[in-house]
This record gives sequence, C-alpha cells and structure tokens, in this order.
Amino acid sequence: MPAADLQDDNSFDQFARDAVYRVIFTRRDVRSQFVDEPLDDAVLARLLSAAHHAPSVGYMQPWNFIVIRDLERRRQVRDLFLAARAEETESMETDRRELYRSLKLEGIVESALNLCITCDRARSKGSPLGRSHNPEMDLFSTVCAVQNFWLAARAEGVGVGWVSILDMAALKRLLAIPGHVVPIAYLCVGRVSHFARRPDLEVKGWGRRVPLSSLIMSERYAGVGEDRLKRLTDETSR
Amino acid sequence: MPAADLQDDNSFDQFARDAVYRVIFTRRDVRSQFVDEPLDDAVLARLLSAAHHAPSVGYMQPWNFIVIRDLERRRQVRDLFLAARAEETESMETDRRELYRSLKLEGIVESALNLCITCDRARSKGSPLGRSHNPEMDLFSTVCAVQNFWLAARAEGVGVGWVSILDMAALKRLLAIPGHVVPIAYLCVGRVSHFARRPDLEVKGWGRRVPLSSLIMSERYAGVGEDRLKRLTDETSR
Repeated sequence: MPAADLQDDNSFDQFARDAVYRVIFTRRDVRSQFVDEPLDDAVLARLLSAAHHAPSVGYMQPWNFIVIRDLERRRQVRDLFLAARAEETESMETDRRELYRSLKLEGIVESALNLCITCDRARSKGSPLGRSHNPEMDLFSTVCAVQNFWLAARAEGVGVGWVSILDMAALKRLLAIPGHVVPIAYLCVGRVSHFARRPDLEVKGWGRRVPLSSLIMSERYAGVGEDRLKRLTDETSR
Repeated sequence: MPAADLQDDNSFDQFARDAVYRVIFTRRDVRSQFVDEPLDDAVLARLLSAAHHAPSVGYMQPWNFIVIRDLERRRQVRDLFLAARAEETESMETDRRELYRSLKLEGIVESALNLCITCDRARSKGSPLGRSHNPEMDLFSTVCAVQNFWLAARAEGVGVGWVSILDMAALKRLLAIPGHVVPIAYLCVGRVSHFARRPDLEVKGWGRRVPLSSLIMSERYAGVGEDRLKRLTDETSR
C-alpha cells in the first residue's frame, strides 16, 4: 500500500473512502439484469480472494466455495426454488400474494454461474476459540465472506443475487454436502446490463427503507438519547 | 456518482476498485490498538449509514444499533467477557490453554465506545419473504450490516473488534434486550494507533491462512476441477 494513500489518522484518502461508500451504497441483490456473457476466471479469483479475507471466529476460515456451472444441475436448483416459492406463497398474507408472485427473485439459470458458500462446522476441531458460548459464530463468519464477495463483485461490475427461497436439505442432497457442513448462501453470479438505482423490493413497493435514526438506541434497548448522532444520520442518509 | 467513475462493463475504475480490495484486505479485528480519543459523531453516523445499507432478506432491515458509552456499563460487559473467557479456557485442549490466555481478545473499556447490533426477529410481521424455509436469514442479514460497518470503519481509520466470548443471555439482561431480539454483534469501536499488518491470531501462532485454492470445489461438495480458477487464486493471493 503506497504511503500516500494513508492519512495521519489511518483513514483512507477522500477518493478511496468515497469508493468504499459507493460500493456499499450501490451494491444490489441482482435477479433481473444478468446478460449472456461468461465471467472471466481471473475476476472470479479476485472475488473469492475477497471472500477469503473475511473475519472468522478464532481464525477458523470455515468456508468452502462450490462453483456450479452445469446447466442441468442449475435447472434442478431452480426447480427447488420454484417448489419453495410455491410453498412460501401459501404462507403470505392474502393481500401480499399477488405482489409476491410478480417479483423476480432469482437468476439461477440466466447468470454466468452459481456459487454455494458453505460453512464447515467441524473445521476448528478441539479448540474453537470464541464459539463455546456462541457456537453460531462460524455461520456468521461465513456470512461476512458472502458480504465481502458481494461488495468486491459490485466494484468489478459483477452482479450477485442471494437465493434464500430454497429447501436447504434438498440442496444439500443435490450438491452432496455432508451433514456437518451448512450451505449458507446460494448465489447467482454474472455480468449484468446495469445495476438498478434502488433495491428491487423498494421499486416494486414491497418495502421502504426505514429511517436510520429510528433504529438507534442509547445505552440499552429502546434507550432514548444520542440526539446529535440521530440528527447527523438523517443528514447523511439519502 | 460521476459518469467518469463507471466503465462500460459497470465496473469501478482501477483506483476505486483498488480501494475496495484494500479495505477488504486491510480490515482487522482490533483488540490492542485503541487510543484514548473520542470518535466524532459525524464519522459514526456514516458508519451506521453503511451498516443500514446492507442487504436484508425481504427488505426486512431487522437491525438496531445500541450505542454504549457509559464506562460503568462497559465494565459490567467486560466482567461478562472475563467470566466467559475463564469458562472457555477450560474447554480448550491443554496445549492451547497458555497461548489462549496470552491473547488479548477485546477492547471493551479502552475503545471510544461500544456498539451492540441486534436483530429484531419480529420485524417482518405477517409476510416474511425469503424466511419460510430459512428463518435464520434475518440473522444473516444483520451480519451483513456488521461487515459493512466494519469495512467502512477501516476506510475511516476506525478500529472495530467483535467480542464473541460473552454469555448472550447475560448481555441481554444487562442491555434490557427483549426476548424476540437477538444481539448479533458486540463491537468495540474507536480510533487506533495503527492497524496491524496481519491478523493477531496469525501473528500469535494461533492459526494460519488456509490456501484459497484448497477451499474451491467444482459442481458439488468435494468435486474436483476448476484447475484454472485454482491456479489464478493462488496467483492472486498474497
């Protein structure tokens, strides 16, 4: 890292800082914009390296990366999605069902490739630092790897969509994932025509961004205070 | 976003892309380098905005942010950590105990402030899109918010350490967190003297970074293949 990039207070210079916020604010859960174009292995290698540099509890690095390119296998995953979506539709409140059905929620077959990021719960063997009280920390570490992958992909112009509407037991059978390994994220990955300016579910009226200041609490749950911070967050948000 | 920043393929320009990778590669779990200096509310507001722009299942935005500044409360949290660490020491393999005891694993009192990021499991009410089959997705969304906060903090020169060695039931009582809300991350946040070049647990010999190519699988769990990709990841990694 060139010394010129670092300020006295260890912060990045303004341009680099802006790039970090830009990647965070313009990342999208991509379902509709995938184009029929292969993804360069060199780019995918960089994205996986970003994922691999996620924090992990006790330096456990519990993740694996299953790259899925075969179209027949992807069609089988898509069938799992369709079945799960049909089931989820039934559980929706009646007035939300039509809107739910109209949403495009995956790009399994249209994307360049799929990636299943898994968590091997047995990797830290005898001395699982940081997991005695909170054994789910390895799952959370793996989610951090997913988010690193997602952000690096945005910077590379690569779309990523996380498909959560899947029966994971069926997915495990399809991908021969053993019992002690948890599939954390099933991702659709590929070049896109463009990135949407706003989240799909906001555009389609499924939900709205909550005002950040309403989510801040002081000292304890529901604790009032932090008025200056709340005012500043309202000014920062767009 | 100025048009000049975007390439034809939707990627960031080289400088901005480098900044994104730099923040991912130089982020650290900070325990030892906190300095006695307040954190500007304007900076904290930007970090919280980064967290709030995380992806969330069904656009649920299940997170809250409890800002903890009071030193007496933080000492009580530190007591919870000390008790949990003593318990965890007992569960370690004998030959790891001395090394474990020598590790500095938190900066609860030395940091400028603490932040507890929680997940409100009831926020999406009747129509939890994407959670019928995988109800833990809201926890994972909250982890994405933690990782956004952590990366933005690195760009701002702000250290973040995630304390996972805590009895969460006791923490919930201390912070008056209701039953349907899960504390996902307890973070120490503040200005630092410097960021370590390598992860603490690597420097101290607790663990090593696993070669990325060994974590890549093809088409199914343990599937061989992806030789070109594996070669490229070995070239990319440092």
